[in-house]
Amino acid sequence: KFGKGILNYTTKDSSFSVKFAPRIQFRSISNWDYNGEKFEDINQSFLIRRARLKFDGFAYSPKLHYKIELGIANRDIAGANQFNRNSPRIILDAFITWNFHENFLLLAGQAKLPGNIERVISSANLQLTDRSILNASFNLDRDVGLQLHHFDQLGDTFIMREKIAISQGEGRNVTEGNLGGLEYTGRVEFLPLGAFENDAEYVESDLERQEDPKLMLGVTYDYNDDAVKTRSNLGSYMFLDNGELYMTNITTVFVDAMFKYQGFSMFAEYADRNADAPVALIQGETDNTSGDIVLTGKAFNVQAGYLFQNNWEIAGRFTSNDYEEISEKLDEKMYTIGVNKYIVGHKLKIQSDINYATKNGVANNIYWTSGFELHF
Amino acid sequence: KFGKGILNYTTKDSSFSVKFAPRIQFRSISNWDYNGEKFEDINQSFLIRRARLKFDGFAYSPKLHYKIELGIANRDIAGANQFNRNSPRIILDAFITWNFHENFLLLAGQAKLPGNIERVISSANLQLTDRSILNASFNLDRDVGLQLHHFDQLGDTFIMREKIAISQGEGRNVTEGNLGGLEYTGRVEFLPLGAFENDAEYVESDLERQEDPKLMLGVTYDYNDDAVKTRSNLGSYMFLDNGELYMTNITTVFVDAMFKYQGFSMFAEYADRNADAPVALIQGETDNTSGDIVLTGKAFNVQAGYLFQNNWEIAGRFTSNDYEEISEKLDEKMYTIGVNKYIVGHKLKIQSDINYATKNGVANNIYWTSGFELHF
Amino acid sequence: KFGKGILNYTTKDSSFSVKFAPRIQFRSISNWDYNGEKFEDINQSFLIRRARLKFDGFAYSPKLHYKIELGIANRDIAGANQFNRNSPRIILDAFITWNFHENFLLLAGQAKLPGNIERVISSANLQLTDRSILNASFNLDRDVGLQLHHFDQLGDTFIMREKIAISQGEGRNVTEGNLGGLEYTGRVEFLPLGAFENDAEYVESDLERQEDPKLMLGVTYDYNDDAVKTRSNLGSYMFLDNGELYMTNITTVFVDAMFKYQGFSMFAEYADRNADAPVALIQGETDNTSGDIVLTGKAFNVQAGYLFQNNWEIAGRFTSNDYEEISEKLDEKMYTIGVNKYIVGHKLKIQSDINYATKNGVANNIYWTSGFELHF
Repeated sequence: KFGKGILNYTTKDSSFSVKFAPRIQFRSISNWDYNGEKFEDINQSFLIRRARLKFDGFAYSPKLHYKIELGIANRDIAGANQFNRNSPRIILDAFITWNFHENFLLLAGQAKLPGNIERVISSANLQLTDRSILNASFNLDRDVGLQLHHFDQLGDTFIMREKIAISQGEGRNVTEGNLGGLEYTGRVEFLPLGAFENDAEYVESDLERQEDPKLMLGVTYDYNDDAVKTRSNLGSYMFLDNGELYMTNITTVFVDAMFKYQGFSMFAEYADRNADAPVALIQGETDNTSGDIVLTGKAFNVQAGYLFQNNWEIAGRFTSNDYEEISEKLDEKMYTIGVNKYIVGHKLKIQSDINYATKNGVANNIYWTSGFELHF
Repeated sequence: KFGKGILNYTTKDSSFSVKFAPRIQFRSISNWDYNGEKFEDINQSFLIRRARLKFDGFAYSPKLHYKIELGIANRDIAGANQFNRNSPRIILDAFITWNFHENFLLLAGQAKLPGNIERVISSANLQLTDRSILNASFNLDRDVGLQLHHFDQLGDTFIMREKIAISQGEGRNVTEGNLGGLEYTGRVEFLPLGAFENDAEYVESDLERQEDPKLMLGVTYDYNDDAVKTRSNLGSYMFLDNGELYMTNITTVFVDAMFKYQGFSMFAEYADRNADAPVALIQGETDNTSGDIVLTGKAFNVQAGYLFQNNWEIAGRFTSNDYEEISEKLDEKMYTIGVNKYIVGHKLKIQSDINYATKNGVANNIYWTSGFELHF
Repeated sequence: KFGKGILNYTTKDSSFSVKFAPRIQFRSISNWDYNGEKFEDINQSFLIRRARLKFDGFAYSPKLHYKIELGIANRDIAGANQFNRNSPRIILDAFITWNFHENFLLLAGQAKLPGNIERVISSANLQLTDRSILNASFNLDRDVGLQLHHFDQLGDTFIMREKIAISQGEGRNVTEGNLGGLEYTGRVEFLPLGAFENDAEYVESDLERQEDPKLMLGVTYDYNDDAVKTRSNLGSYMFLDNGELYMTNITTVFVDAMFKYQGFSMFAEYADRNADAPVALIQGETDNTSGDIVLTGKAFNVQAGYLFQNNWEIAGRFTSNDYEEISEKLDEKMYTIGVNKYIVGHKLKIQSDINYATKNGVANNIYWTSGFELHF
């Protein structure tokens, strides 16, 4: 069936299962920059935004799951540098999970850290063509290491989940070992009204039209010991003027919530990032010619949508990023209104949205993005 | 069956179909350069010329087709630069076509533009080991954007097709938006003697041994508004001495014809490229230290082959590229004679050809290429 | 069945067969460097060591086999340079073999040269998490070209195999033709006690628990004419102070043996590399500012393991690399002890080993590697 993978089967002897699915996202982007006096002429571009190959299933035992996701679009694989052998970063996910005891799951490999909900939601399951600027500036990315997941059924409906991770702290596809220290992530999730139908808490838009109201609240705390990049495990490496790597401890906190009810969906996120010493300075000096500074600050993001019976949806978003002054970055706000037609849920959909962005309260640009997703 | 893909099926509920096919091309190349007095010693090399993974079929509805083609050989993926995030260009094709109304087809994504026939013929279906120097210098490549295709049956056999495209104009896998303006392509094709058996007008060699003579005539007109590369949407980016990108309008015209009859196949192409201001000069200045010049000129290419009953084929080609003086490039001619053994059509074949090239009438080199194609 | 590929079938008309298998290797590495006085603090890192996609089977005729193996982890694809179009080296294997006559096999494409046994054994079938330092310094890698394989049954059990190769001599994925001369490789293998059960001579660990003792002896002689890289067809390109490539003839010899009997497995290798003129010097000069020198020397490696009935295994290794003084590299020794649990043979296994390395007899570091392999 379309949308369930190009391959999707369990072997007769139940020794493994596999779902293999390619997907592509195409975008048309019309942009109008504001030059301080007026909006400039349109700049029209086209883009293969994402293209992926995904394998997942179980192997050997139903308790042992695997996932391999590969990027193939240039935007997916960018990021070659001296710490990944100057090679494209084709691997997104490559991990196994082992349900070694009752409600416990052990994950080993490269995977998304248990960070803010918007990041953990697959880019295949977005309600607007792209994620928010909160996510762009503050999210925790994929990382290599170990994770332990656990869940508890408390009373009739109340579900609580805990996820902890220990990882290298420099993001995905690093080959040259660990710089600085490790990264420690913890997340707790509460589902007071019970499980979402179809486990849809990590999917935008209420495609299931949840019969009863469903809510997930989540809190993530992340500590990146001796972090070497400007956005914790993302961003650029920080160097001192003497060419040495700069390291500082970075803390990131997220609070987020997802709510769905009868076609209405809404989620909100709050992010807060701090660093012990954000500016890459040699001890005792004050000159930061490298310009490397941890991007610290706070951000708020709220997004909502309503899905009509004909599978058309309207959605909107407001995001506000307030950077700390030390980061020397202008505060940003973005307003987005979008419309979607789900032909086969998130597997075949057409999306279009219009975005208005400001910097320190001044208009910056307007852009209109349209595109489709094809996802086997 | 071999040659129909490694996977090839339609789901029971007819919700999608898929053909997945890898293919590889291996080459042995013996080259003798001419140094002005005599041919030098042989240089023998080996090469994986192309290696590809191809997915295509329909999704959701038989009216909605998709194609994803990925390159994996180094020659396929080369071309990392600052406009594609310094990443390899793995994606060749990534598009969907939608037959939204009768004879109309809408294409969205990255695909070959409707340019000269030789380019649009898949590199899997060549009669000589590689395409001509006309194609190397003047073809329109893949680009990202939209295309509209239409065909008409005029009278009993006469078929006319029109294809128009609007695209970014800088070739495939660009991620950093549109530089300069858009590219507009139009092509008309006439098949006065009716459709080729097996739709083989875009396949070299007459493997079907068409019972009746078949002919396709095509004309392409392409206008690349404010083009930024030396060969329209191919070549290198053009910079001014002050480091800024140089832009000029480039026009490319092709006239081509394909003929097949009872084992005999022949095609011919004429190409003509012009630019408003070919040399990358700052207005008012005359010094072009960057050396960036649009490659303008005219070229002619003719190729023919005869397929014997035992599936051996002989083929020959003559190509002449006459560049405009301003391009500072020597005129080129190339003579090629080849022999092919089709074991399973173009899916498993052995090819060998010998090439003699001149520059401004003086011998340049002789090279002998042999190889195989394996194509599931 | 798990471990036999994600896809594995022969078409009904027997026109081709295919086995498609992805695999991943995850590693946790704890390293303690020795700073001359004491071991420093632990450095803990995690790594996707290898990730591969493998296709193989026969095509058209059971006498025509193919193999395509693609790397996707950053460690697999590293090595972009000006001789491969600054592109990642995704293709590992891409070749066909043709059993054109009785015991003869012709191979064309990119494949491992018939070098030392440790290199030819797949990285999926290792008994310790990685190969030895003998292999790291002296192995012959994959190369593009032609190979001829032959075997003889001498008497009841004695088997002799001969493999010769002619290749470009610069390793895999080179696109810019052949620099220097060709590389010629010859290998003879003797199996005096008959074939290994399950053809397991090129697999580490005695997973079959061979009922009778089995032995393979091998000798490889390799001559790289006008080689341009520091480790024959591996290493870095050698340049003269005037920017020109340096070329010299490099000879590599291997003698190796593999023995297996009732759960016990052992192999040993001796390597010896020489060059006509190892230092990249302009004729008549003595100043080698580029520092490019062929890595010449001798090495010895021995490895053994015992597989218990519960599929736990202990294994150990000792390797000694003695470089020629001219190479300006310190002699290395490494001692390794490991333990493995084979859950589904080499297809699903957990491995852990501890390594102690010295340079010129002085402690250099200790590192502890653990990880899993998942291989469909």
